[in-house]
Amino acid sequence: VVRRLTTLDQVLEAITTMQVRGAPLIGVCAGYGLCLAARADDSDAAIAGAAAALLQTRPTAVNLRFTVDEVSLAALQSPRGERARAAYARAGALADAEVAACRAIGDHGLALIQAAHTQGRGARPVNVLTHCNAGRLATLEYGTALAPIYRAHEIGLPVHVWVDETRPRNQGWLTAWELAEAGVPHTVIPDTAAGHLLLRGEVDLVMVGTDRTTCQGDVCNKIGTLLTALAAKEARVPFYAAVPSSSIDWATTDPQTIPIEERDGDEVRWVWGREEQGREARIRPGQAGAAVRNPAFDVTPARLVTGLITERGIAGASEKGLLRLFPDRRR
Amino acid sequence: VVRRLTTLDQVLEAITTMQVRGAPLIGVCAGYGLCLAARADDSDAAIAGAAAALLQTRPTAVNLRFTVDEVSLAALQSPRGERARAAYARAGALADAEVAACRAIGDHGLALIQAAHTQGRGARPVNVLTHCNAGRLATLEYGTALAPIYRAHEIGLPVHVWVDETRPRNQGWLTAWELAEAGVPHTVIPDTAAGHLLLRGEVDLVMVGTDRTTCQGDVCNKIGTLLTALAAKEARVPFYAAVPSSSIDWATTDPQTIPIEERDGDEVRWVWGREEQGREARIRPGQAGAAVRNPAFDVTPARLVTGLITERGIAGASEKGLLRLFPDRRR
Repeated sequence: VVRRLTTLDQVLEAITTMQVRGAPLIGVCAGYGLCLAARADDSDAAIAGAAAALLQTRPTAVNLRFTVDEVSLAALQSPRGERARAAYARAGALADAEVAACRAIGDHGLALIQAAHTQGRGARPVNVLTHCNAGRLATLEYGTALAPIYRAHEIGLPVHVWVDETRPRNQGWLTAWELAEAGVPHTVIPDTAAGHLLLRGEVDLVMVGTDRTTCQGDVCNKIGTLLTALAAKEARVPFYAAVPSSSIDWATTDPQTIPIEERDGDEVRWVWGREEQGREARIRPGQAGAAVRNPAFDVTPARLVTGLITERGIAGASEKGLLRLFPDRRR
Repeated sequence: VVRRLTTLDQVLEAITTMQVRGAPLIGVCAGYGLCLAARADDSDAAIAGAAAALLQTRPTAVNLRFTVDEVSLAALQSPRGERARAAYARAGALADAEVAACRAIGDHGLALIQAAHTQGRGARPVNVLTHCNAGRLATLEYGTALAPIYRAHEIGLPVHVWVDETRPRNQGWLTAWELAEAGVPHTVIPDTAAGHLLLRGEVDLVMVGTDRTTCQGDVCNKIGTLLTALAAKEARVPFYAAVPSSSIDWATTDPQTIPIEERDGDEVRWVWGREEQGREARIRPGQAGAAVRNPAFDVTPARLVTGLITERGIAGASEKGLLRLFPDRRR
C-alpha cells in the first residue's frame, strides 16, 4: 500500500503503528515529518514540539534521533519564512545519503557473497540467512542487509535467501515479497528453524540490518537477531550486520542502556493476514486475554559479530574497527 | 476437543495430523492403536502391518518405536485369540509407567525449582522458560517438563513460566492453556524473545521436553529448542530436559543420524486460530505460494544441556550420567 502523508500527525501515526518501519526509512520519514510541521508553523516552539513528538514515536532506532536533530537544526538555523525550505533541503540530502549508503553497502557486501561462492567452489548457490526486513521496504531503494543480495542477483551470482519469518510482526514475509518481486530465490522458515539449518551446514552467511549499532560494535536489531547470531557462532558461519552510518550510535558505550521498545501485547496474541478468499483478517492462535511480553529488539554483543558492512567498507565490530573507517568520529 | 479413536486408521490419522502430539502421548496412543488393530485381526500379518503403519506416522519421537515394539511383541508372544488382550495389558502397563515417570520427573525437577528459589532468596517467583508443550496435553496426566512446575505450584512455591509461542504449530498456546487451567502464572512470548529475556536475567531455569534423547545426552526436541539452549548457555542459565526413559534412544550415538521430520509447508504458510467472533479460521501472513521449509525438530548437543530429569533422578547429559541411573542398559 502506498500512502501519501501530508501532516505531522499522519507521520507520527505511520511510524508508531509501523506503517513505515525499518530504521533508515523511519529516520527519513521522520525528517520529512518535521518538514511538514515546519510548513504548517515554522515557529521555534512548533519545530521543537514536532521534534519531541517524532522522537517519542519509537525509542530504539537511532536514525530517528539523528535525522530529526539534523533537520530541526537546519530549520532553526534559517530565518522564519525560509525554515520549511531549509528543512526540506536537509531532509532531501539525508534521504539521498541513505540511498548512496545502501548502494555502497551493496557493493561492499557483494564481496562477501562472492568470497563465499568461491569458497564453495560455485557448487551451489550461496545461502544467506536474514532476519526481519532490511530491504527496500525498510530503507530507500536498495535496502541494507538485502542490498548485497540484490547486487549478487544482478550480476548473476547464484544466491538463495533463508528468510526468518520474524515473529511477532512477520516482517520476513515483507522480505519474501520483495525478493519475489526481484526474482531472487528464497525460502521462508519459522524463526525456530534457523539454528537447525545453521548447524546442519545449510547457511553460508548471515546478513541482518540494525536499528542501532553502538560505537563498540554491539548490534541492536529486531528481536530474535541475537538467537541467530548465537547459532551462527556455534556453526562457525559468518554473521554480518549492514550498518549505514546513520544507524551508528556514537554516544552509547553500554548496550544495556539502549531502550528496548516493548510493544502492544496484541501483536503477539493476534496474527494478521489474509483468509483463503483474500479477505484481511486477524486470528488468535490462543487465548484472547493471555499475558504476553513483546520486546521489539535485542542486542547482539560485538563478539558474536563477524563484521559491520558500512557505506565506507567492512568494519570490525569494535570501536577500533569503526574508527578506522570513520576517523572523523574520533573524540 | 476429546476424540474417541476406535480404529487403527483413526489412530494413524490422529498421530499424523498432530491431533495427538507429544512424544509420550504419541507412544501410548500408538500402543493402543496396535491393540485396536489386533482386536480387528490378530494374525501375524495384520499385527506386523499395523506396527509398520504406526511407525511411519512420525519419524522422530523414539517413544513411538519403543511402545509399538513392546505391544507387538506382547501380542505376538500370545496365542491367537488372546493377542488383543495381551496387547491391551502391555499398552496399559506402559501407559501406567508413563504416568509414574511423569510423577517422578515432577518430584526430581521440583528440587531444581526449590534450589533456584533458595538461590534467589525467595525475592521473586522462579522464572522457568519452556518451549513447545511438554505438559499433560503431550503426555499422561502430569507432563514431563511441566511436571516440576505443577509440583512447585501445588506446594505453594512461587513460579512463573515464560512460554515460547513455538512456531509454526504454536504449541506454546497449549502450554498457556493448561497452565491457565491449573492457575500457574505464565507469560507467552514470541520464540524470538527468548534470547533477550535470558540475557537480561529474566529467566532462572530452562525446562523442555524431548522427543528423543540419545544415550550420550543429545536432546532432540521441537524445532527451536536448540536456539533456547544456546542462549541459556550464553546467559549461564541452567538448561534441563525432562526425559522419561521411554524417550531415551539407547541405540543412536550419532545425533546427526536422527531422522528430522520435515512437515507440510502449509504449517508455515498458514496460521490457524480463531477470529474475533470465535470462528475457527486460518490466515496467511504472506504469499500463499511461497517456498517454505518446515523441519519439526532440532538437536541440542549434550554439551549445552545442564542435566536430564529422568524418572530415576537427574542425570548428567552423557552416556556415563545416564548409565549411572540406568545400569541395566550397560552393554
